[in-house]
Amino acid sequence: MREPMLGIDRLIDRIDALDNPSVVGLDPSLSMMPEALAREMYAEYGETPRAVAEMFFLYNRAILDAVADVVPAVKPQIAMYERYGIDGLAAYVRTCEYAADKGLYVIGDIKRGDIASTAEAYAAHLAGAEIGSARVDLWREDAITVNPYFGTDGIEPFARACRETGKSVFVLVKTSNASSAELQDLEVEEVPANVALRGKSAMGDVARAFAGLANMPLYEQVANYVEVWGNDLVGERGYSAVGAVVGATHPEVGRALRRAHPRMFFLVPGYGAQGASARDLAGFFDAGGRGCIVNSSRGVIAAWQRSVDGETVTQPDAGRALDTVAAAARGAAQAMAAALRQAR
Amino acid sequence: MREPMLGIDRLIDRIDALDNPSVVGLDPSLSMMPEALAREMYAEYGETPRAVAEMFFLYNRAILDAVADVVPAVKPQIAMYERYGIDGLAAYVRTCEYAADKGLYVIGDIKRGDIASTAEAYAAHLAGAEIGSARVDLWREDAITVNPYFGTDGIEPFARACRETGKSVFVLVKTSNASSAELQDLEVEEVPANVALRGKSAMGDVARAFAGLANMPLYEQVANYVEVWGNDLVGERGYSAVGAVVGATHPEVGRALRRAHPRMFFLVPGYGAQGASARDLAGFFDAGGRGCIVNSSRGVIAAWQRSVDGETVTQPDAGRALDTVAAAARGAAQAMAAALRQAR
Repeated sequence: MREPMLGIDRLIDRIDALDNPSVVGLDPSLSMMPEALAREMYAEYGETPRAVAEMFFLYNRAILDAVADVVPAVKPQIAMYERYGIDGLAAYVRTCEYAADKGLYVIGDIKRGDIASTAEAYAAHLAGAEIGSARVDLWREDAITVNPYFGTDGIEPFARACRETGKSVFVLVKTSNASSAELQDLEVEEVPANVALRGKSAMGDVARAFAGLANMPLYEQVANYVEVWGNDLVGERGYSAVGAVVGATHPEVGRALRRAHPRMFFLVPGYGAQGASARDLAGFFDAGGRGCIVNSSRGVIAAWQRSVDGETVTQPDAGRALDTVAAAARGAAQAMAAALRQAR
Repeated sequence: MREPMLGIDRLIDRIDALDNPSVVGLDPSLSMMPEALAREMYAEYGETPRAVAEMFFLYNRAILDAVADVVPAVKPQIAMYERYGIDGLAAYVRTCEYAADKGLYVIGDIKRGDIASTAEAYAAHLAGAEIGSARVDLWREDAITVNPYFGTDGIEPFARACRETGKSVFVLVKTSNASSAELQDLEVEEVPANVALRGKSAMGDVARAFAGLANMPLYEQVANYVEVWGNDLVGERGYSAVGAVVGATHPEVGRALRRAHPRMFFLVPGYGAQGASARDLAGFFDAGGRGCIVNSSRGVIAAWQRSVDGETVTQPDAGRALDTVAAAARGAAQAMAAALRQAR
């Protein structure tokens, strides 16, 4: 029986077709909402989480309509919705659905992680939930981000979901923030004898992966684990459905990991508002210009707030607030695509 | 101005008053639901997430009514609800609300974590969400669990929320699962020079915390960070509102961390169904028998499924299914309390 096409292959094909290795982070906040939109929603729903959720969805929908033929993927950050409780999360799901229905590859930036039995519950983000005789996809994500702190048994339920559905996970390896060094750069001496990789990742694979290695930063060790976790999920384009999150703010790390892990696809946050430039990204790509997708959130979705001349942003009129948001986002997404084409 | 009483003090007082350092994990799954309850909810709502959510809430409510005068705290595991999408999460919130209204200390086991700006959004679990002129508490948790992989800037928004509200966080240090060793036990050589602890945790504190230390497992390093993160949040009972998750399955780790960190309160999972016994727990307590709270989930909430004589569990009649669940949970919670009284 032929396996279903892996989503990571579909993502790579979309990147190639659009000649654009970027993803738009859908991370709305109240401070981005045009005053006219906020006024309208507060008038309709009061100062409630529901009002914020409706703003966020309308805002996202306008952006999705504007960028769906420019970018291959979007990455809604669930925290920005979860902040507003159940209503906010409902807007997250509506956003994922709307994006998926437009053919966009949807990366749920949820950074979940727990011990095996609990990770299995979180894996419903990919595998769906079994209820009675049915299995239902309640989240509509094509991929999610996950946290490696628990080791193999906390990752295996997600990897199993990838095997079953063809979807993907991106494991945090080296994050874009300044404090990432505190844990992730700690020099580790060796893999201790009590490391017991369980499940289908055989000890032998791991021993081979680590033979002769010592004194490397923790994130390299984590990347070696990710390699093992994804070694049976490599798609037709040469990349595994188990990828890694590597921050654009660490260009040398990206270059080193790219060289060490030719089958590992990178999700790269930190471009734009977080400080990394297109030049910083060259090392994240393989020789063919593939192997990563670069995220920008505020730089695209809040582009309407950037005043060209440094003056206070003029609030758009009520009738065309979302048109203004959408046009600015489309322009910023196109500019980012052009910059990345140069970089790779 | 007098600060509000820290929640960690209230928790310790409740533990003392009930002479019971345990917390009931509210981690429902479909396999625990009495057939009569499932049949009734499927009949009313169809085979839908809503039906599962209603089952979970009714199940939890029965248990909460039965144990509220036995245990000081409950720990709903959000993954078990998130598995069923928005409806499931609504049952999580209703469970937190119901427990909080009964005076129970509610530990949301959400294991969130991200870079600073995103962690700030997750911190709304504790701080509430600002909407218009109001701040609303949408989750009703007294404490949450968080992941340390991002370092200080990913923790600071949660610590700030603790300062503002008196609530608590428990940072993952050493988790209860077998694979925890893969990252958490890696020997780290030293804190590298590029570690830049930011925010209000001064570099000086950290330098002092680490002076002379080398070659320790990663989890010890994380515990040292947790110490710094919580050093300005120590309550009247001598424990900090920034605590640690330390698995009961690692008795020696618990003993060593207890000795090294006298102000660090431990949330201890892994008792019962995960294999640890009361004897394993002695080292987690301080000399006065305080300093930790031990979680049991399945051992309490699925106690009704344990057949005394090893026979197939008899499904309770429709009319009294939840009474059976509640009585068994109360009995198991009392038995656990008795076992822990011996241990400490």
